[in-house]
Amino acid sequence: MGAELKENIKAACGQFNPVFGDTKSNINKICCMTEEARSDLIVFPELASSGYEFKDRNELKSLALDFNSGAEIKRLKQTAKETNTYIVVGLAEKDRDKLYNSAILLMPDGKTHTYRKNHLFDREKALFDRGDKPFSVVETPIGRIGLMICFDWIFPEAARLLSLGGAQIICHPSNLVLSFCQRAMFARSVENGVFTITCNRIGTESRTDRALTFTGGSQILGNRGETLAQAGTDTEEIISAEIKPVLADEKMITMNNHILNDRRTELYGRLL
Amino acid sequence: MGAELKENIKAACGQFNPVFGDTKSNINKICCMTEEARSDLIVFPELASSGYEFKDRNELKSLALDFNSGAEIKRLKQTAKETNTYIVVGLAEKDRDKLYNSAILLMPDGKTHTYRKNHLFDREKALFDRGDKPFSVVETPIGRIGLMICFDWIFPEAARLLSLGGAQIICHPSNLVLSFCQRAMFARSVENGVFTITCNRIGTESRTDRALTFTGGSQILGNRGETLAQAGTDTEEIISAEIKPVLADEKMITMNNHILNDRRTELYGRLL
Repeated sequence: MGAELKENIKAACGQFNPVFGDTKSNINKICCMTEEARSDLIVFPELASSGYEFKDRNELKSLALDFNSGAEIKRLKQTAKETNTYIVVGLAEKDRDKLYNSAILLMPDGKTHTYRKNHLFDREKALFDRGDKPFSVVETPIGRIGLMICFDWIFPEAARLLSLGGAQIICHPSNLVLSFCQRAMFARSVENGVFTITCNRIGTESRTDRALTFTGGSQILGNRGETLAQAGTDTEEIISAEIKPVLADEKMITMNNHILNDRRTELYGRLL
Repeated sequence: MGAELKENIKAACGQFNPVFGDTKSNINKICCMTEEARSDLIVFPELASSGYEFKDRNELKSLALDFNSGAEIKRLKQTAKETNTYIVVGLAEKDRDKLYNSAILLMPDGKTHTYRKNHLFDREKALFDRGDKPFSVVETPIGRIGLMICFDWIFPEAARLLSLGGAQIICHPSNLVLSFCQRAMFARSVENGVFTITCNRIGTESRTDRALTFTGGSQILGNRGETLAQAGTDTEEIISAEIKPVLADEKMITMNNHILNDRRTELYGRLL
């Protein structure tokens, strides 16, 4: 029994304020927002079950989830199945002695796809192991989905690699403390001709010697850069838009220009 | 006698409406605006001596300039010398049987540097030969300068390669008919930590079966994406800003993140 291909989908962001260390309530929030959104796809922030500002690696370890077991992943899988929703959520991942800043895509059929943040931001370098896998794309009945996390945005290579890999929709869980990204994602959508869904968190954490205030502004952008939905800077909210992922397969932006095939890769040697 | 290094420079754009086919008056305009700007560096639009909408390759050929001879290049060199200005201008270039959409940097000491557009836009593919050289950077006493032309903006690889090559200032002659680029250049400055100077033209050309209206909005952006100067959408004007090119050498955007060295090139294979 294969799932039916869906041409028009409802995509959503669940912007909220995770409570640091309260895994249970955060997972509960994610499941409730998924139910409320009644969407085909919903994206949640980075590190949404734990919060962001770990005191040290031990504290991170105590809050990281084993994606192969544990009640939390089970509950998320259950929600994906019951609501028939593709859920993307950023979570701290524990894999033996490694700790990753990951995003997981949970599919209604029980399958999952994981991405481990390749470009760690600032203090994250002292806490997490960096991602160890290329950017890859998952083919689903609601479209081809690529994942990147927060600071990956500043490297055009990330969204580019996902687009070259066939992504129609880039899902982008974030914990942004500035507003550069929200402004720059326009370029990511336009230069690749893809839908981008940036879900940022809100709220303030003051657990170390610094206070971090997250800037919200979650947004869903169309494959030509149109703002299809945008959240406030400090409100818990679900935003959503009807999108047609197959539009992202149209890479001809004039009669004569294919934005991926026009790349002059023979002249790009210095990129690697 | 070596030119003295200059730490703070005045950078400018000369936004104007080239008269199609009137090479002499267009070159005159460029020289007059250079004199008026009294800047260290000035950028002019793409195809600024010819206009944009050639009827065919023969017409283009008749208006293209041989960069190794001819009164026009001589006059521009003379102006660069007399005003002590680095002039960047987009020109149709004739090199034996080849025709390029080029940008030339004319330096006060008489030297020049040429870039030939690598990513041709739409009908340009039927008129011009495409560029045949990698993106390269020129070291000058006013900073390290990289050139790209108009549609190159949509390929993040172009500005990236110039930045990897050491550019502090990207000069970007353009003939834009939409406003995507002006909005997206913010990302180019931020993701590379470089100054960008986009000089667009204004006016309308109706020489073929279509009318093209150019969108002006020339802009000078700082190495963190700040708008330092911006022109109107349909006014002839010189805009300028004082900039400190060496700021673009600071690629650390947090205590722990170098935006070029943090690239995970071992994972970027698909880019080439």
